[in-house]
Amino acid sequence: MAALYGGVEGGGTRSKVLLLSENGQILSEADGLSTNHWLIGTDKCVERINEMVNMAKQKAGVDPLVPLRSLWEAAALCGPLSTLSPHAFSPGGIVLIAGTGSNCRLINPDGSESGCGGWGHMMGDEGSAYWIAHQAVKIVFDSIDNLEAAPHDIGYVKQAMFNYFQVPDRLGILTHLYRDFDKSRFAGFCQKIAEGAQQGDPLSRYIFRKAGEMLGRHIVAVLPEIDPVLFQGKLGLPIVCVGSVWKSWELLKEGFLLALTQGRELQAQNSFSSFTLMKLRYSSALGGASLGARHIGYHLPMDYSINAAAFYSHTF
Amino acid sequence: MAALYGGVEGGGTRSKVLLLSENGQILSEADGLSTNHWLIGTDKCVERINEMVNMAKQKAGVDPLVPLRSLWEAAALCGPLSTLSPHAFSPGGIVLIAGTGSNCRLINPDGSESGCGGWGHMMGDEGSAYWIAHQAVKIVFDSIDNLEAAPHDIGYVKQAMFNYFQVPDRLGILTHLYRDFDKSRFAGFCQKIAEGAQQGDPLSRYIFRKAGEMLGRHIVAVLPEIDPVLFQGKLGLPIVCVGSVWKSWELLKEGFLLALTQGRELQAQNSFSSFTLMKLRYSSALGGASLGARHIGYHLPMDYSINAAAFYSHTF
Repeated sequence: MAALYGGVEGGGTRSKVLLLSENGQILSEADGLSTNHWLIGTDKCVERINEMVNMAKQKAGVDPLVPLRSLWEAAALCGPLSTLSPHAFSPGGIVLIAGTGSNCRLINPDGSESGCGGWGHMMGDEGSAYWIAHQAVKIVFDSIDNLEAAPHDIGYVKQAMFNYFQVPDRLGILTHLYRDFDKSRFAGFCQKIAEGAQQGDPLSRYIFRKAGEMLGRHIVAVLPEIDPVLFQGKLGLPIVCVGSVWKSWELLKEGFLLALTQGRELQAQNSFSSFTLMKLRYSSALGGASLGARHIGYHLPMDYSINAAAFYSHTF
Repeated sequence: MAALYGGVEGGGTRSKVLLLSENGQILSEADGLSTNHWLIGTDKCVERINEMVNMAKQKAGVDPLVPLRSLWEAAALCGPLSTLSPHAFSPGGIVLIAGTGSNCRLINPDGSESGCGGWGHMMGDEGSAYWIAHQAVKIVFDSIDNLEAAPHDIGYVKQAMFNYFQVPDRLGILTHLYRDFDKSRFAGFCQKIAEGAQQGDPLSRYIFRKAGEMLGRHIVAVLPEIDPVLFQGKLGLPIVCVGSVWKSWELLKEGFLLALTQGRELQAQNSFSSFTLMKLRYSSALGGASLGARHIGYHLPMDYSINAAAFYSHTF
């Protein structure tokens, strides 16, 4: 039996395991629920990963008793970048995650790392689906309370909120925030805000613009730590965008560009003259598998050049 | 055996039960942990109240098998006001709670109610001990992340945070925010910010000023709903302040007055010309007992005039 290498893409809502052969071929993949240990605990996390590995082995038609040579989860930190670049993350870049939660990681060409965010919904997650859902609900609560005037009419968001959570009033929402709190389920309300924004609801559009601004500010936060070499490539600063909030890039765009333009001026980073946003073509579990193999001294052969696709470029 | 009446003061950190005789005399009291059902669940809540009632019966030397004529919890909503005024809340006023959580309730002379806040730490609690602790931690996290510049040096608050939570770094704080989250314990960090502010730490003072502003904005939020009669008494608008954050009134004062002065101008409430802040001399469990007795048609004789003490008055 040939050697097997595994990679895990963890997330606040869904996870994925990929199995690769020693020649870098993807043998199978299996999906599962959240493997965020802060949300579900370590035991449950290990259990879910085991289930996905067993399912993937079954799909690949391999003996379930054959152990993996390595299994690595690298999604939240450096998985996405290692998918792009196998050699010590060279040339490096930024990974900006906006899924259920949010996180920004910079990896410089010399392998040094820096970051902003990634502290979860109690202490941040700005620009994530959870944050967008929470902002929407908070604006409705504060407007009805007369604590803070809403920037636009709350009609659409209020009704969408009662429909999504299937409750008749604000008191009903509390169950979803406390007793039956499920971060992934709460964050799912973001989808309704995206739909509202697509239909032209001004408040929904406002919230997505703010989310774009917050995501842009994560890039600004790490600007001082970026090796200037990363600004000088053909694409400008490479930013790998991970997570489903990026499906609404057109809604985020205005706020994102505003934050970068302002932050760039404030920090006088004139060498930061352009950037390119990229999406991964494959799961970041692929990067995890590559990293894990490298940790045990094996270089998995892969064609990295086809793993990412640029979807937006901007020059200041 | 004479009839017994009970009152409960619920809170996010501590609770209290008072036992009264039918002539309004306080027989005994018993303290316990939080009885907020959103935080601990209904079963645990009922269990804790039962334990306190039994302890209070024991202290009063009454047969534990004698049932209470009535038991009423009224702290969060109208307990504090009913302690002041037994007859249908007349003349009414505002209760502004800033304990573990926060809440603002207006009761008009005609018995009609309105409010702002009280949605818990996931959706508000502005100006509460939890909110103050959270603001402090958030400012430190954002400053280190370079996401948001702190308004003052974070030195004192950062060190106080690591000391209070007994962790070496920010990652250690996450355990207290997720896996081992305890709202009351987290809110307890507010005490350290109060100490810092007393010692002159500019960031701690800033956070309390902001808390005062948020509490003031709760009053502003209900201004349009206030029966103008409530402005015209000798004390001006009566505001009953409940919860331990009010122990730091001197630190809240500047922000509180700022919010009221600004809000009053914006809402053109010229009839709102003065207010008086009052503290309860006795637990709001007393008001609960009175309310509960009234619900079963009995009027507990009490001397309400001595139940509250004014601690600050202001004329605009």
